[in-house]
Amino acid sequence: MTSPVQPRAWEPTYAGRAERMRASEIRELLKLLEQPGILSFAGGIPDPALFPVEEARAAYAAVLADPALAGSGLQYSVSEGYLPLRQWIVRHMGRLGVACEVDNIVITAGSQQALDFLGRILLSPGDTALVTAPTYLGALQAFSAYEPRYDELRPEHSNRTPASYAEAAAASGGRVKFAYVVPDFANPTGETLSLAARNQLLDLAAELDVPVIEDAAYAALRFEGAALPPLMSLEVDRRGSIEAARSIYCGTFSKVLSPGLRVGWIVAPTAMIRRLVLVKQASDLNNATINQMVMHRLAERAFDAQVERACAHYRARRDAMLAALKRYMGRGVGWTEPKGGLFAWVRLPDAIDAARLLDRAVAEACVAFVPGAAFFHDGRGHSALRLSYSLADEAQIEAGIARLARLI
Amino acid sequence: MTSPVQPRAWEPTYAGRAERMRASEIRELLKLLEQPGILSFAGGIPDPALFPVEEARAAYAAVLADPALAGSGLQYSVSEGYLPLRQWIVRHMGRLGVACEVDNIVITAGSQQALDFLGRILLSPGDTALVTAPTYLGALQAFSAYEPRYDELRPEHSNRTPASYAEAAAASGGRVKFAYVVPDFANPTGETLSLAARNQLLDLAAELDVPVIEDAAYAALRFEGAALPPLMSLEVDRRGSIEAARSIYCGTFSKVLSPGLRVGWIVAPTAMIRRLVLVKQASDLNNATINQMVMHRLAERAFDAQVERACAHYRARRDAMLAALKRYMGRGVGWTEPKGGLFAWVRLPDAIDAARLLDRAVAEACVAFVPGAAFFHDGRGHSALRLSYSLADEAQIEAGIARLARLI
Repeated sequence: MTSPVQPRAWEPTYAGRAERMRASEIRELLKLLEQPGILSFAGGIPDPALFPVEEARAAYAAVLADPALAGSGLQYSVSEGYLPLRQWIVRHMGRLGVACEVDNIVITAGSQQALDFLGRILLSPGDTALVTAPTYLGALQAFSAYEPRYDELRPEHSNRTPASYAEAAAASGGRVKFAYVVPDFANPTGETLSLAARNQLLDLAAELDVPVIEDAAYAALRFEGAALPPLMSLEVDRRGSIEAARSIYCGTFSKVLSPGLRVGWIVAPTAMIRRLVLVKQASDLNNATINQMVMHRLAERAFDAQVERACAHYRARRDAMLAALKRYMGRGVGWTEPKGGLFAWVRLPDAIDAARLLDRAVAEACVAFVPGAAFFHDGRGHSALRLSYSLADEAQIEAGIARLARLI
Repeated sequence: MTSPVQPRAWEPTYAGRAERMRASEIRELLKLLEQPGILSFAGGIPDPALFPVEEARAAYAAVLADPALAGSGLQYSVSEGYLPLRQWIVRHMGRLGVACEVDNIVITAGSQQALDFLGRILLSPGDTALVTAPTYLGALQAFSAYEPRYDELRPEHSNRTPASYAEAAAASGGRVKFAYVVPDFANPTGETLSLAARNQLLDLAAELDVPVIEDAAYAALRFEGAALPPLMSLEVDRRGSIEAARSIYCGTFSKVLSPGLRVGWIVAPTAMIRRLVLVKQASDLNNATINQMVMHRLAERAFDAQVERACAHYRARRDAMLAALKRYMGRGVGWTEPKGGLFAWVRLPDAIDAARLLDRAVAEACVAFVPGAAFFHDGRGHSALRLSYSLADEAQIEAGIARLARLI
């Protein structure tokens, strides 16, 4: 027999989770990008003019020209990832001050998948995740699928006491499970955690006995000044080895080489990697094999040159954006001064709602950005906005900021 | 301050889930495959000799030779998947008797990711998933991360009453959430559900008001006889449209074109696809863009020819395996006679433990297979085993089965 259609039977389980997930802002913004004539400061995506197209063409051709390599590249592969790529990452992490081995690394489909896996492993419903406010929208999206409560980190302004975080988590029926930060050129603010803040955050995590999840998506894109050590290198130094540490580092090739191949990685103690490899296996078996082989070749041949090229390219655009903000924005408007990455964060007078401003900006000034509230776990940020300078050239940036300032 | 190392803080959350996940059998078996001299009937992976290497080389080269295509292929893309690829899938599903639109499709990283997403959307801890016993190991791995209880489907031997499934689920504190089947040339048995069993399963699902998840990974690899309609086409016919149906179809290019690109898809009512697109976005943003563009070209140009080639190739191997089983196996040993796919399923006398047999088979006969218990949610199957004929040629199959039979 067939029963009448009752879609509720298979919809409700996820309904709660889906609604708690962030509305699909990136998709809306991608649609804005596609509208001809709209100058977009919205997308946090790299400039395709920088993609190493010729190197990628050569790498795919080389893999597919060799029968043995082609047979491997088009086949299933081990869930932990392509060994030569993990070996490259070991050397890369060494240059960042993190001594590790290939068993400390699992390859993921971009760092977005790393955040999903870490949420899945670490969070039970009602547990607490510590995040900055604002923070990366995609992290809130990934974690929220596992139904945590959020509490706010303020690493530059001295966090609350460990006990106060632990007590608030217990009062909500869970425990603090991790602290998540984007320490370098953060999405969305462009700001970088000071060395003091990094150490203070590690102290807090140690007292709470939880890992720090360090999202290093933009760390290579430093335009000026000396690099600060990754939190993971500071913790490995404190504890003597990566196996004694509990930090978790999420890296990606998306901002320097190409996001379209979906290759990122996690660095963590071996015991954590072993669990993550099981999650990877259950989730999608392995990252696309051929893309790992190609990314290995791109990393070997083009990583350093691409970093240099991307930094020069984005530095000029960052300069143009800061100059235009200074020239055109009135009093009562403030902004961050990023030393790297793709974003600046603008604070408007409280009376201005950024979401309503976006409607007018698109309609009247042909300019798009992301309203600030998207980046807060608790809905704050209504009078802030994120500007990306990655896709517009200097002249467009000057013109777009001038038009936006006129509206404000 | 730094506290002494206490790894327990970040390990325990997942410990329960990780242990409930299937031990990592595929990895162990891949290691066996790598041992020189071992003839493996273990891996369920396609023969790399069939990969469309030249077509893949041409497709990557074509995408990367065109600046606009290259810019798209190396960039982020929409979470639902590359539109021309979804359009190809619409036509493909139409040929299978399923009328659908691009909004009924989301692209996933192989059908493994489809199973993970469906488990995540549909299962809460303690809910019941109906599965055949044996069933696909990777499905148990994907679902088990969401902590369901399993109950057994016996579609060819008349299932229990809907009420008895519902009552057992309720007694365990949850509800039946879906029925999962591999209707064509199932992994691990190679068997195909009859039309009567398909209809009976749809009746059961309708009475329980749950979707059937149809895993069609091997459906294209039919060696003989006429194709049976997918469960989804039967249900769409019953209900008048895909939007009124609740079946969920999981397809993949892994067995016909290449698993290394990680491209599969889900077909479902639009409301379900909308949720799955949110899950995709939170999980890894999008499938590797360039691989979707390349898979679209491969599907357009090579799908039908590859199906024909693969069927001829595997049919000869299936014939060799069935002939060798008939020639060498003694009384008390039974096996399935697959009409497609990659697997045959062997039942040994109860006194023989297949896991112990594997140790001896590797050591004394240089032959590997997968012991049957891996495919049961409840640990049955100790005297069964799965043989894959995908990687060995006809002479190797004859020799390997002869050696295995001598041990038995």
